[in-house]
Amino acid sequence: MADLRINERRLSADFAALNRIGSTGDGGVSRPALSLEDLEARAWFAERIEEGGFFVRDDDAGNLSGVLLCDNPDAKTLLIGSHLDTIPNGGCYDGSIGILAGLEVLRTVQEAGVTLPFHLEVINFTDEEGTWFSLLGSRSLTGRLPLGRLSARHGADGALRAALSRAGIDIDRLKLAKRDPETIAMYLELHIEQGNTLDRLGAQIGVVRGIVGRTTLEITFHGESGHSGTTDIHQRRDALQGAAMFITRLHLTVQDRFDGSVVNCGNLEVYPGTFNVVPSLARLSVEVRHVDAKALGELEVQVVELAQECAGRYSLLLEHQRGEHMDPAIMDDKIIDNIVQVANRFALRHTSTVSYAGHDAQPMSAFTPSGMIFVPSVGGISHNPAEKTHWADVVNGANVLLQTTLQAAQRFTD
Amino acid sequence: MADLRINERRLSADFAALNRIGSTGDGGVSRPALSLEDLEARAWFAERIEEGGFFVRDDDAGNLSGVLLCDNPDAKTLLIGSHLDTIPNGGCYDGSIGILAGLEVLRTVQEAGVTLPFHLEVINFTDEEGTWFSLLGSRSLTGRLPLGRLSARHGADGALRAALSRAGIDIDRLKLAKRDPETIAMYLELHIEQGNTLDRLGAQIGVVRGIVGRTTLEITFHGESGHSGTTDIHQRRDALQGAAMFITRLHLTVQDRFDGSVVNCGNLEVYPGTFNVVPSLARLSVEVRHVDAKALGELEVQVVELAQECAGRYSLLLEHQRGEHMDPAIMDDKIIDNIVQVANRFALRHTSTVSYAGHDAQPMSAFTPSGMIFVPSVGGISHNPAEKTHWADVVNGANVLLQTTLQAAQRFTD
Repeated sequence: MADLRINERRLSADFAALNRIGSTGDGGVSRPALSLEDLEARAWFAERIEEGGFFVRDDDAGNLSGVLLCDNPDAKTLLIGSHLDTIPNGGCYDGSIGILAGLEVLRTVQEAGVTLPFHLEVINFTDEEGTWFSLLGSRSLTGRLPLGRLSARHGADGALRAALSRAGIDIDRLKLAKRDPETIAMYLELHIEQGNTLDRLGAQIGVVRGIVGRTTLEITFHGESGHSGTTDIHQRRDALQGAAMFITRLHLTVQDRFDGSVVNCGNLEVYPGTFNVVPSLARLSVEVRHVDAKALGELEVQVVELAQECAGRYSLLLEHQRGEHMDPAIMDDKIIDNIVQVANRFALRHTSTVSYAGHDAQPMSAFTPSGMIFVPSVGGISHNPAEKTHWADVVNGANVLLQTTLQAAQRFTD
Repeated sequence: MADLRINERRLSADFAALNRIGSTGDGGVSRPALSLEDLEARAWFAERIEEGGFFVRDDDAGNLSGVLLCDNPDAKTLLIGSHLDTIPNGGCYDGSIGILAGLEVLRTVQEAGVTLPFHLEVINFTDEEGTWFSLLGSRSLTGRLPLGRLSARHGADGALRAALSRAGIDIDRLKLAKRDPETIAMYLELHIEQGNTLDRLGAQIGVVRGIVGRTTLEITFHGESGHSGTTDIHQRRDALQGAAMFITRLHLTVQDRFDGSVVNCGNLEVYPGTFNVVPSLARLSVEVRHVDAKALGELEVQVVELAQECAGRYSLLLEHQRGEHMDPAIMDDKIIDNIVQVANRFALRHTSTVSYAGHDAQPMSAFTPSGMIFVPSVGGISHNPAEKTHWADVVNGANVLLQTTLQAAQRFTD
């Protein structure tokens, strides 16, 4: 079993075929969740599952799986997951190599006639990227989909309902996708890093120890509009000045005082938004990430305190509201050990690392013991047609996934 | 003649009647240029002109006048101007008291049988506020309308053409509104201050010595988008961070080093504008005002240098472009003396002041000797339903306008 390797040539052919679905012609792909391209990719995946002689499984959240059943119908299931959807104009490694490598693991195990102590299931999760609602599929499967927030965001228009229905999903039945954690043995995921840590260190494998938690805050500065020329400059309550000072100081504060955290201000709306009127309102989203739950909480408090301070400086009123929140995820120690052992056996340079991107492993890790394997992203470029992982690294990653599965089977049997 | 006063009661009745046109029910009015409400105000004004027995005059820019003709058909014309249009949900003093006081001057002079050495014309300028193009009427009359910029801004849609045509204006004939400066004796305008200088000093009359020039700059910071979690924080080229630092430092620089100048950043657009993507582009308009042309030029250079510095700090590329520009306007010394003498004669507290708002007197002052009289705005509030000028101050302003006209006539005759 230790000699088993996935079929590189078959993996490469699959990769080429999948990349044609939603190709943007510049090396990238566009398969937003529930788009026609995403549906085409699912259909292609279903064909590969049937072609391999695996059991096709789907659920009420549109998650689509191929299952290699073991002899014991009451056995648990080892899940290998990832996603075929992409952001608009994304790269062709993000998500897809995880699915293709998982499929290869099933094929390789089946061809070798290996008997496993669990069912082996490769699962494509719906809407990992959040075209409609991030991690929709894995959050549904783990019973962690906040249905209230989903309908708050999409309740008014029928677009989500229509998109889901194209994929045969009934919004009112999403909750039925929940599975019983007692039936799951563990969860594994192979993914590109999307950052530049591995590339910078020259590591071939990243052993993920955790995924950062993420909190978004909606911050609104309320001032007073006025004539841009005649309003006394010492009496202006300029909402944009408050927001600008906040953005500058926030980034400095985080760099100085919150090691390992990452913050982003990705948007800013200004009202009334006319060059010759003093802005009365500036609204922005702040996203903070940290792998440590305590530090993430402290950072959130700090963001609000800093916003209060900047609002006070310009006599503005502050409104703040927590938006999305996801707890940090901790990977399972035993699976981490397995991955390290396999990487050592293969003599691959590996490093322990933290994921600053969200993944399906995030809800999964709170549901079942989970592990994640990273392969390097050249230059850390991702969510971009120029996203690239050297092919040798993809193959290494797939083989580490295979052998980690086999090691886990060994451990599971003992 | 020195005893002549306008008719307070008639002025008050006119003010009440005009305020009903476009009333927003909260003390404010909404008569954006060329709206149905603006057209109704013009029709009401035309009736008042006819009722007074004055000559009705209009031109190809839709400027509408009442003229008290003098005996000499070859005489020049003293223009008293202002505007009936407002911003959406504006106040009821801005513009309108200048028109109503001008009308009262004509009526009072006519009733007293005073013979003037010039025709006396009260003129309502089209679109002072810039609903379509600021100072459209006065810039057309003075031959200073930048037709290229007008069609650049409105060429694509037919909305301006349609709006102008509602007022009987043909866009291709705007340039025919130009008058010969040789036919104009001078220009006078009464307006509310819109700032709080007079109110703060307890002055009843502001003798305007100049109107600030204004330059707008379109500043764009170009960075690179990236995943908000995984992009190395030391390698981010975050366009919003550059823009935020620029806005904060710009206001500090202006306060510290450019006394008498006023700057505004009224809008900011961020792309792609998603909370979880590092912003690749941030675009804003910067508006700078100064009454001294040299200082205004230095300020413009400083804005660009500062933007370059902030762009460099975050490895961004800077794009900058001059938008609107209007030179500072200097009021005529002799008219200033006249206003001061009249205010002294009336024992009104007066102060020499600069206008930080644009006015029709701006293009007019480069065309003919011009003078402007300010009355106080309570608390400096303007462009707002709460805009207010005490009625006694309105009446004082109208009488100063009347007596300045008569003094000018005296001087003109000498």
